[in-house]
Amino acid sequence: MGGQGRLLGLGVGPGDPELITVKALRLLRAAPVVAYLVAKGKKGNAFTIVEDHLRADQVMLPLVFPVTTEKLPPPRSYEHEIAEFYDAAARDVAAHLDAGRDVAVICEGDPFFYGSFMYLHDRLASRYTTEVIPGVCSIVACASVLGEPLVYRNQNLSVLSGVLPDAELEARLAQADAAAIMKLGGANFSKVRTVLTRLGLAGRALYIERATMANQRIVPFAEVDPATVPYFAMVLVPGKKWQG
Amino acid sequence: MGGQGRLLGLGVGPGDPELITVKALRLLRAAPVVAYLVAKGKKGNAFTIVEDHLRADQVMLPLVFPVTTEKLPPPRSYEHEIAEFYDAAARDVAAHLDAGRDVAVICEGDPFFYGSFMYLHDRLASRYTTEVIPGVCSIVACASVLGEPLVYRNQNLSVLSGVLPDAELEARLAQADAAAIMKLGGANFSKVRTVLTRLGLAGRALYIERATMANQRIVPFAEVDPATVPYFAMVLVPGKKWQG
Repeated sequence: MGGQGRLLGLGVGPGDPELITVKALRLLRAAPVVAYLVAKGKKGNAFTIVEDHLRADQVMLPLVFPVTTEKLPPPRSYEHEIAEFYDAAARDVAAHLDAGRDVAVICEGDPFFYGSFMYLHDRLASRYTTEVIPGVCSIVACASVLGEPLVYRNQNLSVLSGVLPDAELEARLAQADAAAIMKLGGANFSKVRTVLTRLGLAGRALYIERATMANQRIVPFAEVDPATVPYFAMVLVPGKKWQG
Repeated sequence: MGGQGRLLGLGVGPGDPELITVKALRLLRAAPVVAYLVAKGKKGNAFTIVEDHLRADQVMLPLVFPVTTEKLPPPRSYEHEIAEFYDAAARDVAAHLDAGRDVAVICEGDPFFYGSFMYLHDRLASRYTTEVIPGVCSIVACASVLGEPLVYRNQNLSVLSGVLPDAELEARLAQADAAAIMKLGGANFSKVRTVLTRLGLAGRALYIERATMANQRIVPFAEVDPATVPYFAMVLVPGKKWQG
């Protein structure tokens, strides 16, 4: 009897393969099965980050999303289809765990910071020994690449989604000492820029795409073409410098 | 002419020495000078995290804080004394940079996420080639150790300081989908617990001290003795699970 395998959620960092932690790398190399969530037809960012570290004898378990948009024509429902997908993905992972094999789920950034791993964790952690290894998350990666300290001393930081309605975004940004805004694709970037401009914060805002990845791109906030904003883009409004 | 050395701000992660990134470790080992901010009479968390990786021929440059409290008897002023200290620390670092030696400033967690390195960066980055390597920050480390996903999908996250006045803390927590509250020493923990209880959020709140450090401690939120809360403590209110 070998017993059950362990579920490992490994944060592999924001994009630069060297920004994985020593611990995640050690556990990745030792795992017989490496799983990752990935869009259909894509290689996946997490896989790209770690591929040079993989061994030929490791089993790869890509968990391929069935849909690429949250907007589905009725009677289809994104929530329903994605829940069924995670149920099936969890069963695929569980089959290896039941056979006594550890499964390392590689997660871009940090597993518990907006990571899809959380949906596997919520389905499996109560039944299997689970360990989560934190990773360098996107907001601190963006700040470091931009060379801008994010939050000083007792400043508060608001991490916001660009999907928020105009008025709510404005109310939250108006009271934030510092902010990081994600989910800027579609019409969200234009909305965010309009709100920041209205609040007089456009001059402090910084824009970056795919921080630390090979195709990283920094554009002055005022010059961003909303039509080109990808999913992995971020706007930072760093806190005011404290004269310590 | 060897030219100037580079200023390197290295995030060394939250406490577990294995949670340093491969990149920070490589740059740390290659640096002729290793600097770190530290309280008088202490070894320092950043130094403790990396000490097993240091080489005997590296110059250690501890930058020792002159004060251990922000409350000084008049006519002394914390702001004044700390600014003078950072000016002097920046001069000590600059002397090595001018002599052509790279200086790696090791920073617990992430350098730009409430890190004291920021005050050196603000004094030196315009004059010297500077690179900042992001690290695993405390909030994601806490979530991973607690085994609780922090933020799902489009949830917003508020990172707050326990020094906020009661009413402001309540207003901000009332509208947060998820929250991380730091700076809980002194009377702050009791205030935070009272506010969370009033908002009906105490049942979702989690408490942890020194996440991933050797002396990590997790205590049920209701059972925390406010008198024992250290500086490196955190309260998390994870986002509600999304049924994806």
